[in-house]
Amino acid sequence: MPQGQPSVVPEDGLTTRQRRNRPLVAVHTGPGKGKSTAAFGLALRAWNQGWPIGVFQFVKSAKWKVGEENALKTLGASGEGGRVDWHKMGEGWSWVQRDDQQDNEAKAREGWEQVKRDLAAETYRLYVLDEFAYPLHWGWIDTAEVIEVLRNRPGNQHVVITGRNAPAELVDFADLVTEMTKVKHPMDAGQKGQRGIEW
Amino acid sequence: MPQGQPSVVPEDGLTTRQRRNRPLVAVHTGPGKGKSTAAFGLALRAWNQGWPIGVFQFVKSAKWKVGEENALKTLGASGEGGRVDWHKMGEGWSWVQRDDQQDNEAKAREGWEQVKRDLAAETYRLYVLDEFAYPLHWGWIDTAEVIEVLRNRPGNQHVVITGRNAPAELVDFADLVTEMTKVKHPMDAGQKGQRGIEW
Repeated sequence: MPQGQPSVVPEDGLTTRQRRNRPLVAVHTGPGKGKSTAAFGLALRAWNQGWPIGVFQFVKSAKWKVGEENALKTLGASGEGGRVDWHKMGEGWSWVQRDDQQDNEAKAREGWEQVKRDLAAETYRLYVLDEFAYPLHWGWIDTAEVIEVLRNRPGNQHVVITGRNAPAELVDFADLVTEMTKVKHPMDAGQKGQRGIEW
Repeated sequence: MPQGQPSVVPEDGLTTRQRRNRPLVAVHTGPGKGKSTAAFGLALRAWNQGWPIGVFQFVKSAKWKVGEENALKTLGASGEGGRVDWHKMGEGWSWVQRDDQQDNEAKAREGWEQVKRDLAAETYRLYVLDEFAYPLHWGWIDTAEVIEVLRNRPGNQHVVITGRNAPAELVDFADLVTEMTKVKHPMDAGQKGQRGIEW
């Protein structure tokens, strides 16, 4: 599609280039498919730019996103593009040395603490906080604190947050918000998820 | 997320396994971001299953999806996972030997003819028909014919179609339909697209 023109040019003292390269907070929310999938698709572009990518999976899932994980790790190790670090909750975050049966809430908080450390250290250029909307929605992690940390993050770090019920304050704060709406799903016709499509 | 249960079990004479593995036609439509991105994310899962993947880009774009293309080609050539063939319209479909300045409509039709040949030959297990909703919406390619071909495709071939204005008949026919709705876009705040995010 042709490149669009902004509908408004704000008086923010920035040049077009400065404004264009402002780092983004994106949110993929809503009940439809494709929220995480689109975030991982975005990671392909970041990889192609050579950006270091950190993926944080915030919800323990029966179906880990093994396809995406294997693909992005293969890309990260290919010697081209950016590197990819993949962190999973529940199997133990990779930086947690022992699995001491903390509950999920504590684990989600620990994941967020690590994201904060990485943002402060500018470890990555793209952060995929997969299913991060859930611990926010459930009140496990304070949305106001997340917004404050994101607002004040240094450097040029993009953050994509996925999950069904993104809090309204986060949607208000984010630069790019897409809602995925379910129009039709095979499960409605009695078809369960299948390998290669759902995971 | 935990694996869901179908809300209806149809009396179609199929076992759960047969029904589960029925090949899908998925449509990503609507005005929001992430339609193509989610399709390429889906391709990561297919790649991880070792499935051959055919990508057909149906709209000539100022911003080719170079990130996704480089990433998927790198994966396809990695020696793991499935192979990836990437076909672009406008630069000349890769199977068109000479560029004789056909117009875009004829080129789109030629692309669809190739998809038909590949479906008949069961060349791929996943087809990404990127922006294919546009030539359908514009009437360049007959939607009824597309549905007929998809309905009768042999074997186990999944097809994902993206594009803003998917025809209602196609939405009715498809197994999985997601609409991407724009909630907020940085362009609304005067920020143009940027490298690594938009392409």
